[in-house]
Amino acid sequence: MQKIRAINQYTGIDTRSAIGTVDYPLANMDRAPTIAELCSIFLKDGVALAVTAARKALHEARLSPLDITHVVSTTCTNSANPGFDHYVCKELGVIQPVEKVLLHGIGCSGGLASLRTAANLALGSSFRGRRARVLVVALEISSLLVRSELDSVHDLQQTRIGVTLFSDCASACILSNGIGGEDEEPIYELLGWDHRVLPDTEEDLGFDVDPLGKFTPKSVLNTRTNIFKRMESSPLTPRPKTRLFRRISNIHRSPLHTPKSPSKLQIRSRFRLGAAPRRSYNPLRR
Amino acid sequence: MQKIRAINQYTGIDTRSAIGTVDYPLANMDRAPTIAELCSIFLKDGVALAVTAARKALHEARLSPLDITHVVSTTCTNSANPGFDHYVCKELGVIQPVEKVLLHGIGCSGGLASLRTAANLALGSSFRGRRARVLVVALEISSLLVRSELDSVHDLQQTRIGVTLFSDCASACILSNGIGGEDEEPIYELLGWDHRVLPDTEEDLGFDVDPLGKFTPKSVLNTRTNIFKRMESSPLTPRPKTRLFRRISNIHRSPLHTPKSPSKLQIRSRFRLGAAPRRSYNPLRR
Repeated sequence: MQKIRAINQYTGIDTRSAIGTVDYPLANMDRAPTIAELCSIFLKDGVALAVTAARKALHEARLSPLDITHVVSTTCTNSANPGFDHYVCKELGVIQPVEKVLLHGIGCSGGLASLRTAANLALGSSFRGRRARVLVVALEISSLLVRSELDSVHDLQQTRIGVTLFSDCASACILSNGIGGEDEEPIYELLGWDHRVLPDTEEDLGFDVDPLGKFTPKSVLNTRTNIFKRMESSPLTPRPKTRLFRRISNIHRSPLHTPKSPSKLQIRSRFRLGAAPRRSYNPLRR
Repeated sequence: MQKIRAINQYTGIDTRSAIGTVDYPLANMDRAPTIAELCSIFLKDGVALAVTAARKALHEARLSPLDITHVVSTTCTNSANPGFDHYVCKELGVIQPVEKVLLHGIGCSGGLASLRTAANLALGSSFRGRRARVLVVALEISSLLVRSELDSVHDLQQTRIGVTLFSDCASACILSNGIGGEDEEPIYELLGWDHRVLPDTEEDLGFDVDPLGKFTPKSVLNTRTNIFKRMESSPLTPRPKTRLFRRISNIHRSPLHTPKSPSKLQIRSRFRLGAAPRRSYNPLRR
């Protein structure tokens, strides 16, 4: 625990977004919240956060919820069926049929994997000559796991650094295939995407469900360091200078951009959102 | 509970596939298995089942694991990170980069949603002129939930019919976009896909994580009946005569089929697999 407190001092993170303040009731019980209690909060406060991010992304892209054709979303801190994406659509007022994909099993890499999946789906629409406006949403509610994670640090005497890094956040953007609409101003162009698995690293970092919602049994400091060293030296790692995005305009200054080809995938908006209303604190710095 | 037993008699299901026999230790404790215990069994026996189904599908499609370009999988009975699809790929010997999508939050509809997502991704590859051989895998381990579900039936006095229907199963097929390879014999052609959400039905059927892995709090008989009635009468329901698949050959008799166009999505294999070695029983009929 001393080591965790020391690491927390060195992260450079003074505040982290959270859906509740430090006196939030569920974070101050005589036990860690159960996975069912966490699910209930996620579907209430988490979904509200994701809906706010999605609305800001739609607004920035000058689109209405009725323009959405696909929703690609991700979370590793909830496992409800129907998934949280269903409730986000319902709150947004998406009543048309949309193809929904809720990515699971990819932990921290969910945001980039969602963009990659959205891009592939959008190109599938391009192949059929159809319009694609993909709402991409990532949502994680991690702050309520601090208690169980600290219990694990104490009980297992492991240096588990998740508790020093993660917070609550929703982010959203709209990815367009450029077909059927020329009135939007793209912000980024997606140039490519790539994907590698480093062999035999699955024990180094993970997140499994536990009755008390723990990160089990991984995200331990030494193995994490090893991951990064191995990533640097691995021939499997894509060369770092490969550009995956190109900023093609500043939305506040650019002239109207007309897409030239449906093969260009354009991000029409992006919005990253801490907990709303923003309540930020670092739970280990009180 | 009497009502559940009566329904179980009328399902017409005499045996159900399960990874264990009725004396399986985890199903015979003084309490229901925890979600962490269920996860451990899923990643061991469940993954083994999925790998067997995937190998049979690859064999039927005359493909090697190195031919796979995408993996689309689904489960609602596990929430591990890395997801079970990672372990399936590892066991199969998939060492090339593959784009993986693990669908979550869609319960029983996961199988069809996986095919739809695989089809969209394959068309994305077609747009880029790239070969797609998508391994589609569905895996559910439901048998070990019987105990907690019966506890819920007793405690909540609800007519929860999941316990009378579900079993353990993995299924797999290969979906091809027909680019880059003419030596395979397609079995089905995927003609189309569609998707609807009936408004305000999310409370009728669901599956949320609980410390004891319960189906909470749904799949209740009366509301299920209402779903089907509403589906029949809803203008949102696709007309039942729309054909989504066409059987294009019998693999044992057909001449070699050469795909004419990459827009044709072909299912090169299909394999549905109960628990292996097959241990079938109906847990409510002893």
